Amino acid sequence: MSQFAILFGGVSYEHEISIVSTITLKNVIKKGKIFIFCDAKREFYLIDEKDMKASFFSKCEYKKSEKLTLKQGGFYKKALLKEKRVEFDTLINLIHGKEGEDGTVSSLLDFFGIDYVGPRLEGSVISYNKEFTKLYAKSRGVNILKYQVLRKSDTRELALNYPVIIKPLRLGSSIGLSVAKDDKEFDYALDVAYEFDDTVIIEPFFEGIKEYNLAGVKTKEGYIFSFVEEPLKESILDFDKKYLDFSRSEGANRAEIDKSLQKDMQKTFISLYEDMFEGAIVRCDFFVKEERLYINEINPVPGSLANYLFDDFNAVVENVLLPKKRNISIDYKYINSINAAKCK
Amino acid sequence: MSQFAILFGGVSYEHEISIVSTITLKNVIKKGKIFIFCDAKREFYLIDEKDMKASFFSKCEYKKSEKLTLKQGGFYKKALLKEKRVEFDTLINLIHGKEGEDGTVSSLLDFFGIDYVGPRLEGSVISYNKEFTKLYAKSRGVNILKYQVLRKSDTRELALNYPVIIKPLRLGSSIGLSVAKDDKEFDYALDVAYEFDDTVIIEPFFEGIKEYNLAGVKTKEGYIFSFVEEPLKESILDFDKKYLDFSRSEGANRAEIDKSLQKDMQKTFISLYEDMFEGAIVRCDFFVKEERLYINEINPVPGSLANYLFDDFNAVVENVLLPKKRNISIDYKYINSINAAKCK
Repeated sequence: MSQFAILFGGVSYEHEISIVSTITLKNVIKKGKIFIFCDAKREFYLIDEKDMKASFFSKCEYKKSEKLTLKQGGFYKKALLKEKRVEFDTLINLIHGKEGEDGTVSSLLDFFGIDYVGPRLEGSVISYNKEFTKLYAKSRGVNILKYQVLRKSDTRELALNYPVIIKPLRLGSSIGLSVAKDDKEFDYALDVAYEFDDTVIIEPFFEGIKEYNLAGVKTKEGYIFSFVEEPLKESILDFDKKYLDFSRSEGANRAEIDKSLQKDMQKTFISLYEDMFEGAIVRCDFFVKEERLYINEINPVPGSLANYLFDDFNAVVENVLLPKKRNISIDYKYINSINAAKCK
Repeated sequence: MSQFAILFGGVSYEHEISIVSTITLKNVIKKGKIFIFCDAKREFYLIDEKDMKASFFSKCEYKKSEKLTLKQGGFYKKALLKEKRVEFDTLINLIHGKEGEDGTVSSLLDFFGIDYVGPRLEGSVISYNKEFTKLYAKSRGVNILKYQVLRKSDTRELALNYPVIIKPLRLGSSIGLSVAKDDKEFDYALDVAYEFDDTVIIEPFFEGIKEYNLAGVKTKEGYIFSFVEEPLKESILDFDKKYLDFSRSEGANRAEIDKSLQKDMQKTFISLYEDMFEGAIVRCDFFVKEERLYINEINPVPGSLANYLFDDFNAVVENVLLPKKRNISIDYKYINSINAAKCK
């Protein structure tokens, strides 16, 4: 039977989230699957399906699992005579945050020739850095909220009106994020955000702004979109709540919106996805304010792959269209022509 | 003696250029150095200094060299009992183009914990994709020439006036680049550029525009800048000429410009470099038109590291300030707190 490998863990503030996310997906995906864990030291382990419990990792029991080496062509386990390749067809990158979403994992998988579901290098960098997301979205004709970028070395001068929301420039989830209504709160919010990144992004905070999430993917038969979710919010999700959010396999709140807004979201999704996120199941988080649609975030490795937004998630994950790789032939034409010239 | 490792070759249209560039640098760098070659199959080899000749690679003789494995902590060679780490202090990324400059190599080196001179992940992606360079430069307040992006699937409609210059979106050197003065030339230029990338960038072409190159790097003692070069141009450098250009160790044409333009270039260089290119020796290629300075390209792995632009290149390469890595601790706090809650 053909099967998936799920890569999870990784060096990231969302390491634990990735474990929870993978345990959730284990029960959702029907196709055969194996589990490859990347620990805090960036060593890889092949985890038995029966060991896929959170405590197996938090108690460091995973260290008894078989260690793997990443080399050309895949992950290898030691064998008596020759290393043996771990067999799977397609890997699912489920490392959330930092190295899973900033382009590192995609670089590794591309370099070592592994087929995978997940964002590629450019899409990762564009979605992981929130300023780049803004620049990119704007270049694709998508509306963005205004924003200000501050670096740790800058004077703490706010160019927007209160209330504002302050986020580390490069983090996923809600880690390090706060809302500030005055100078004192702003100062504290900066302290918090700078704990996680030397650069922060600041946006106006609109109480009660409409939020909608839409997931989608390009397949051989065109785009498949999820239904639109209107996330239930208790002001802002804190990390604990967000953490639980990554373990969802059901219970999304279907948005009651008219067809034209839904079409608009799908059109905007395609503008952002096309020629940039091929190979990934992406969740776009939108705002609607005064009947205008804004992109808030592009999540190319959403919690448990946003499975709970699709009516038939298995049809989605089994049909992701992986981007073609360009073949670069190295023929030493120039060196040979120069050497030939020398011999004349 | 402390020493450098030079990583070169790589899967890229500039594979051969990288070999030439490394041979040049071999004679320039005074500190001890070793040579690590990445071949077309992405396998690594430790090359003896005496074998560092172009034909050694074009004739595939390098395959007799010792093969290396990239693992946590460095490159390893086989030994009788245990693999042995190849000893060096800092690696110089001298893989030009594609995987050397698009963020792949930086991801590998960061993931496997190797200190290196070269661009990091975000800087790579920003400088390798010419549209991202424009968006980025603009966000940093740096002037850019206007441009148009076309994808293979788009209608071939030009939004600029002739003459224009057409470039593959993601290539270094001058590969796939042409100037078009009319529709027929434009059509042909697109065919050429699409051979190398599914997206192209088009800019106005100004005959006789002033071009200047400035290289620089951040060190513990602040920035070191090269002198400004006004490259000698015979219309546009074709690939053969550019190829020879990568083997330069002397003979740059010092620009005769006034102090204020030089200061302006250095200031612009810093705007682009700060918090993005730390760790790399970068060459910025500028245009000056009607007394305005424009950024053309940011080269974070310039040919032979632009050694020929510095009066004392060894002082430069030995003092590159490598960016600090943020330490992410993984303590299973959340999983433990959830498990503790379960036990109550």
